[in-house]
Amino acid sequence: MKSIKQKFSVPFKYTVHFTEEIFSLNNALFAHTVKDSRVAKVFFVIDEGVATVHPSLCGDIKKYAEAHSQHFILCADPMIVPGGEGVKNNKRYVEQILDASNTYGIDRHSFIVAIGGGAILDMAGFATAIAHRGIRHIRIPTTVLAQNDSGIGVKNSVNAYKKKNFLGTFAPPFAVINDSTFLNTLDDRDWRSGISEAVKVALIKDASFFEWLEANAVDLTARKMPPMEELIYRCAKMHLDHIAGGDPFEMGSSRPLDFGHWAAHKLEQLTNYELRHGEAVGIGICLDATYSYLKGLISVEDLNRIISLFKKLKFPIHIPELSGDNLVNGLEEFREHLGGELTIMLLSDIGQGVEVHEMDTQLIFKAAEKLEEFQKE
Amino acid sequence: MKSIKQKFSVPFKYTVHFTEEIFSLNNALFAHTVKDSRVAKVFFVIDEGVATVHPSLCGDIKKYAEAHSQHFILCADPMIVPGGEGVKNNKRYVEQILDASNTYGIDRHSFIVAIGGGAILDMAGFATAIAHRGIRHIRIPTTVLAQNDSGIGVKNSVNAYKKKNFLGTFAPPFAVINDSTFLNTLDDRDWRSGISEAVKVALIKDASFFEWLEANAVDLTARKMPPMEELIYRCAKMHLDHIAGGDPFEMGSSRPLDFGHWAAHKLEQLTNYELRHGEAVGIGICLDATYSYLKGLISVEDLNRIISLFKKLKFPIHIPELSGDNLVNGLEEFREHLGGELTIMLLSDIGQGVEVHEMDTQLIFKAAEKLEEFQKE
Repeated sequence: MKSIKQKFSVPFKYTVHFTEEIFSLNNALFAHTVKDSRVAKVFFVIDEGVATVHPSLCGDIKKYAEAHSQHFILCADPMIVPGGEGVKNNKRYVEQILDASNTYGIDRHSFIVAIGGGAILDMAGFATAIAHRGIRHIRIPTTVLAQNDSGIGVKNSVNAYKKKNFLGTFAPPFAVINDSTFLNTLDDRDWRSGISEAVKVALIKDASFFEWLEANAVDLTARKMPPMEELIYRCAKMHLDHIAGGDPFEMGSSRPLDFGHWAAHKLEQLTNYELRHGEAVGIGICLDATYSYLKGLISVEDLNRIISLFKKLKFPIHIPELSGDNLVNGLEEFREHLGGELTIMLLSDIGQGVEVHEMDTQLIFKAAEKLEEFQKE
Repeated sequence: MKSIKQKFSVPFKYTVHFTEEIFSLNNALFAHTVKDSRVAKVFFVIDEGVATVHPSLCGDIKKYAEAHSQHFILCADPMIVPGGEGVKNNKRYVEQILDASNTYGIDRHSFIVAIGGGAILDMAGFATAIAHRGIRHIRIPTTVLAQNDSGIGVKNSVNAYKKKNFLGTFAPPFAVINDSTFLNTLDDRDWRSGISEAVKVALIKDASFFEWLEANAVDLTARKMPPMEELIYRCAKMHLDHIAGGDPFEMGSSRPLDFGHWAAHKLEQLTNYELRHGEAVGIGICLDATYSYLKGLISVEDLNRIISLFKKLKFPIHIPELSGDNLVNGLEEFREHLGGELTIMLLSDIGQGVEVHEMDTQLIFKAAEKLEEFQKE
């Protein structure tokens, strides 16, 4: 029997920019990003919450487009969509973007730009990835979480069958633009919650970053911008380096960046997404750190440092949903979404992750009980 | 302003196998293809037309699965779907595959296998690509066209907004298995129509393959299997080499393998897909070859050889829909789907393609008129 072995590599590149006042008339970054051999067609999808706290945003974009009309034109008014996980639960938002792509003749060399939190970027990224097999997509993340983690990577998704991220693709963006101006208007929970992803990369990869987080925890919760900008840059850099150096499209079963996420996904779903993703990840990290301690992988001192940091950052450590069948089901759903062999990241030290392929259910329960005690302390 | 430049390559590989009697109990190829560290879950999507002319197929698959139960299990009965372009026009088929993925817990390391013509492979490939960001997908193409061209590449799609392939992704299959047994039951039009894709790659890349096609045209239309197997292997090899050596995910505007396709897509749509894709491509190639002659790019002798070959292969050369606004609209829709600059492949010789970025409408009309004359000759 004959056969032909097909083999190739597909190169991807994109830049994550850090800026302020992106649509200020003297900031040329956005116009340069969409600059091409022809005048680009651009369509915006904007988080309703962002548009509300930045009432001049849509007008600013219009003026900016007029000032840079030699580079791009707006093919329609921005589409305003509700923020938060709900936008990933309802098919109509993806359909609205596809409708717009058809109506306005948005082709593969045109741009769909999403401004908002991680959920909107996930949803718009999915619609953009499947129209014409991929329209150019620019992400402008407006939350800490989206700027340092979810908005800068290569994944998009929507929810289906009550399962988080059931539908999606791997599709690197054309560019990401992090504008720190948007962070000023976040409420305290959203300002804080993305910090857990920085703690995550620090714990599995970089002890010195963890120490920096301990040293800056008070300033971070006090909403000081310079340490937050540094946190976002460092976290984003580690996140991007990990993607580039590993398995960008996750063909294997290993997903180090999902440390703490198996319990987190379940908690988000059980609280109907009232719990923020970053908060859920904080609890998930505390759970898996405690499990690592109970397994004899890390010392009690290390565990205490981790729990203390999350407390200093004003994260919840435990919620009632973290118990019993919820834990068992959460683990099984994670395995199913991952596919193949169960692979869970634990800690062998601060700054050092270690993967395991089995989890002891009784020990998970015990870890959850310990978190309940920590919460009360 | 700071920035981080992200850059990586994603490696892909898959094998295109050539076999006979794929589910015969002494053919271990399929079982070896899905063999993994655990017993694989496998779900089949089968072309209704194929299941009808091969009434033992579903039973054979069941017996084969039982005989190879150490390697894989069927997680449900096969899903039978209608063949032909209609399956890409109706959302429910994609939804049925997604439903099955959810219901049967088909994860990223499980397999969805599609058996059928190009349309079913396109549709099932799309569903498979977006569930869990990509379930392993095996294609078993049953037509000449799907075995030598559409079923072996990296694209999937469904139609939307009355536009062919409006939705889709680039997602290399896990494996492709070409089983020549299925070709025996094709009707004459389906047997012949895929030959146009072989003429296409020959014309743009390999004059000696074109000469081989001229020498074997009579045997091919007489349904002799050995030359058809050779045609499929050579065409598949050139198609795969082109993908690997070029721009697999089509980030630029150049698409040499779309030679003859701009008019073909429009003709398929205008005839409500009564015209086969391969037949439409045949007419599209004749049109662009005639245009190349009228532009002074190829000699009248070369043009006559091309038209004669299609006539010998019993292809239609012209249909009434190939005229006026249809041509203008077809060109514009192709440009929109491609995105960016219009890029059309023409011929500068037999075996030598040349790209142009402008098409002269009056000359297109004249080429279509000449085809009408050729058709009558």
